[in-house]
Amino acid sequence: MKAKVHVTLKAGVLDPQGKAVHHALEALGFAGINGVRQGKFIELDLAETDREKARPMVEDACRKLLANTVIENFAIDFEG
Amino acid sequence: MKAKVHVTLKAGVLDPQGKAVHHALEALGFAGINGVRQGKFIELDLAETDREKARPMVEDACRKLLANTVIENFAIDFEG
Repeated sequence: MKAKVHVTLKAGVLDPQGKAVHHALEALGFAGINGVRQGKFIELDLAETDREKARPMVEDACRKLLANTVIENFAIDFEG
Repeated sequence: MKAKVHVTLKAGVLDPQGKAVHHALEALGFAGINGVRQGKFIELDLAETDREKARPMVEDACRKLLANTVIENFAIDFEG
């Protein structure tokens, strides 16, 4: 089973990487973009096949390593 | 409207960042993980509200800036 983890900056946290992408898109002529936020997308290939058993483990991994919960949120989806 | 872009490495492309995360998870005691792949997640806040009009623009932005299509795939979803 695959766990798909999205790690995104919390609202209000400055995102210089997103701002740089936004400016680059404008420089390339893309108009009508109000803002850009960049996050991380992490796919974990798990041996576990039971979502209910896997979820606490993946949440623990997010809190301990994948996300900095002071400034980032995480969301977990399962597939397969 | 928001466009959510996932940029992931193509199958077969080595992912040292994912491997480092995998090793770090194992070092923290997380077992049962077969592999980790790390990608990017980019949220674009668009002025356009019509998905059919926005899609070609966002695809163009992916090809020109957001993804390196030699080694990366991209997927676009719209929300709102």
